[in-house]
Amino acid sequence: MSDTDLLGIEHRWPERAKWPALQGLAAAGEDFYRRGWSLGTSSNYSVVLSKTPTRVLLTASGKDKGHLGSDDFVLVDEAGKVLRSEGGKPSAEMWLHLILAQRENIGAILHTHSPSATLLSDLCASDGGFWIEGYEMLKGLSGITTHEAKVWVPIFPNTQDIPSLANAVEARLNTTTEPKMYGYLIRNHGLYTWGKDLAEARRHIEVFEFLFDVLLRKRALK
Amino acid sequence: MSDTDLLGIEHRWPERAKWPALQGLAAAGEDFYRRGWSLGTSSNYSVVLSKTPTRVLLTASGKDKGHLGSDDFVLVDEAGKVLRSEGGKPSAEMWLHLILAQRENIGAILHTHSPSATLLSDLCASDGGFWIEGYEMLKGLSGITTHEAKVWVPIFPNTQDIPSLANAVEARLNTTTEPKMYGYLIRNHGLYTWGKDLAEARRHIEVFEFLFDVLLRKRALK
Amino acid sequence: MSDTDLLGIEHRWPERAKWPALQGLAAAGEDFYRRGWSLGTSSNYSVVLSKTPTRVLLTASGKDKGHLGSDDFVLVDEAGKVLRSEGGKPSAEMWLHLILAQRENIGAILHTHSPSATLLSDLCASDGGFWIEGYEMLKGLSGITTHEAKVWVPIFPNTQDIPSLANAVEARLNTTTEPKMYGYLIRNHGLYTWGKDLAEARRHIEVFEFLFDVLLRKRALK
Amino acid sequence: MSDTDLLGIEHRWPERAKWPALQGLAAAGEDFYRRGWSLGTSSNYSVVLSKTPTRVLLTASGKDKGHLGSDDFVLVDEAGKVLRSEGGKPSAEMWLHLILAQRENIGAILHTHSPSATLLSDLCASDGGFWIEGYEMLKGLSGITTHEAKVWVPIFPNTQDIPSLANAVEARLNTTTEPKMYGYLIRNHGLYTWGKDLAEARRHIEVFEFLFDVLLRKRALK
Repeated sequence: MSDTDLLGIEHRWPERAKWPALQGLAAAGEDFYRRGWSLGTSSNYSVVLSKTPTRVLLTASGKDKGHLGSDDFVLVDEAGKVLRSEGGKPSAEMWLHLILAQRENIGAILHTHSPSATLLSDLCASDGGFWIEGYEMLKGLSGITTHEAKVWVPIFPNTQDIPSLANAVEARLNTTTEPKMYGYLIRNHGLYTWGKDLAEARRHIEVFEFLFDVLLRKRALK
Repeated sequence: MSDTDLLGIEHRWPERAKWPALQGLAAAGEDFYRRGWSLGTSSNYSVVLSKTPTRVLLTASGKDKGHLGSDDFVLVDEAGKVLRSEGGKPSAEMWLHLILAQRENIGAILHTHSPSATLLSDLCASDGGFWIEGYEMLKGLSGITTHEAKVWVPIFPNTQDIPSLANAVEARLNTTTEPKMYGYLIRNHGLYTWGKDLAEARRHIEVFEFLFDVLLRKRALK
Repeated sequence: MSDTDLLGIEHRWPERAKWPALQGLAAAGEDFYRRGWSLGTSSNYSVVLSKTPTRVLLTASGKDKGHLGSDDFVLVDEAGKVLRSEGGKPSAEMWLHLILAQRENIGAILHTHSPSATLLSDLCASDGGFWIEGYEMLKGLSGITTHEAKVWVPIFPNTQDIPSLANAVEARLNTTTEPKMYGYLIRNHGLYTWGKDLAEARRHIEVFEFLFDVLLRKRALK
Repeated sequence: MSDTDLLGIEHRWPERAKWPALQGLAAAGEDFYRRGWSLGTSSNYSVVLSKTPTRVLLTASGKDKGHLGSDDFVLVDEAGKVLRSEGGKPSAEMWLHLILAQRENIGAILHTHSPSATLLSDLCASDGGFWIEGYEMLKGLSGITTHEAKVWVPIFPNTQDIPSLANAVEARLNTTTEPKMYGYLIRNHGLYTWGKDLAEARRHIEVFEFLFDVLLRKRALK
């Protein structure tokens, strides 16, 4: 999306049909809601409309993710300042989006809150995370080309102090001594993942939610 | 909805498209039915159209909740008198709606009948209820601001004597010595919850059904 | 549906939109397919258009139940003679429909083939059936007014000799010394139930499938 | 589909509404995606448009299977040469389609990637496959007329060397000393099955996915 589009957005709030990012997030929300991954107004989603300056289109706090309309988004800058809103406010979790939105190659950030992510994040919390290994589905994560890959999913303790959690996530993103992070879980809370654009971020959500489901069912079979 | 609207309702029965409460309940029913939470004509839903005088729009008895039309509702007063109907009758469970409809800050009451609620209400019946604790999803309940909250879900024995059950629920609502009740289960029967308006009541249904699913799957993993 | 309608049906095959029975069965099929209760062209459904003479509208053999069109049905009489067809043939299971179609108060017969019915019919086969007891959902079965009811679901061994199975089912229907039968399972095959009309038969399918799911999940929790 | 149609396809790329094969694959994809059998851009589907010369319409690599449009397909010949494309490329798994596309009576090949197929292919990998036996649903496989049938589902080890996997599958197809193969699993990867046309292939997918689900749930109950 060009800067011209972005300026356009700041001057007027285009109707849903004309705004691909908004439409794309609403469509993702409809699907995630249907699957039970975003019930109870949980979850939040964003698309990075511009990197310089940082312009992030983010779902407003407390919105029903299965029925997002053009009033249910806010436009924020890198400092979290609301540039445009139809009455909605960003949730505190905005900070978890902003640390990612300012990194290279990240164009969309999605957070879902599924039963499987909730359960797995609790079961593996004491290990600080878990490995996913040997599944063809891992190839759905950008850059992975073989099922022989091994991906570590870190689990962060849940907290209402989101700025502090954002700092911990950012530190983890900047670490060079840990395995590459494609997404992470917050304990009893859900999944954050991202991609270069919304299509990739949505694919990453599907890949992780599929694998969480498989891992949990495998445990139950043992 | 203003009193004028209410009077309007009593004079003529507006078509579905013009009546937000009826439309909203039909949309909730479609979703709950799809998820398997309102099969077999189980469940009943209501919206409080007016507090003084009490006017409650309630699904009629025995209706298919996945395909509610304008004929599938009744309008009742605080004494359960039917003020308007297209042939349908209120079910006995109307009394469970009326005790809630007359309380402050309650604008909608929803009852679902999911497999998870059925199972959990049976498993925990001898304890009289169960705690839900430590889940981010709890923040979807109105007034809860941290996952560190602890919510008690009471379970009432099932009975066909609904007025007596309504009395027991009302007594529990009036108790000041028990933890706040955001919803309750009837054993082998399902969930009742409510909200200041239909959106909040529907969010509370989603929050509880999500958490019941998580609690049951957690038990199965142990 | 009057005899005049029935004669009309025999003279010309009305388009789907004008034929409520056909439309109703297609809508039921869409829902059952979506829920995974009628995959792989399994299942068959019928509506009794007339009792004297017997005229039964039945899904033709091998049709995709999620996408039924007006070509996917046959009209048969009490002897299984095809009176009208757009090329389709009745399946052998027609006889399981015809024994029911000729009984009083039965206007529709539905057979689904869900994973839960398949599993439960196998697990309880050696007992010849199982009790369902204590569930509010039982009140969805016509004539049951309390959760304190107790319903026996017989399980018949599977066979490709459908006329002989039909005889066994009919004998069971005529028995006065066994508990009333609201539906039955065929081992590793699925559920048959019925109702005075299609709405009731569909409600009975939903009630049984809900209860099978609950019973299986309860076993898994033990 | 006649050769004339095929020539037509090579001259111009018809819009989706006019091309039944493309439309049929898109519809199958929508359904499989909704059921969670083709998440994360996994899976690939094909229809054989012509046998002499071999013309196969195949989903292009990396496409979202829930939202296939006319740009998301390639037309290839028996050597894997791309004859027509709107920018998409075939995935390496094209070879698994081509070995089947050239055999008699195979008009469509479908590959899904469900959690159940993933789990079962892992659990039974050391046995090289598993029997399915005694289920009425087996009659959904073309040529099987009784539930007393016994079907062996081979499991191939997963590999990124698809030509070598294709050779192994082809050798298995040509064996006369092994039980007939209606479909196969790749470990931790998913199901391949086929049919004389798309309707049959889709029915086979539904039959296998149903049975995998039943087998897994049966294991969990033990």
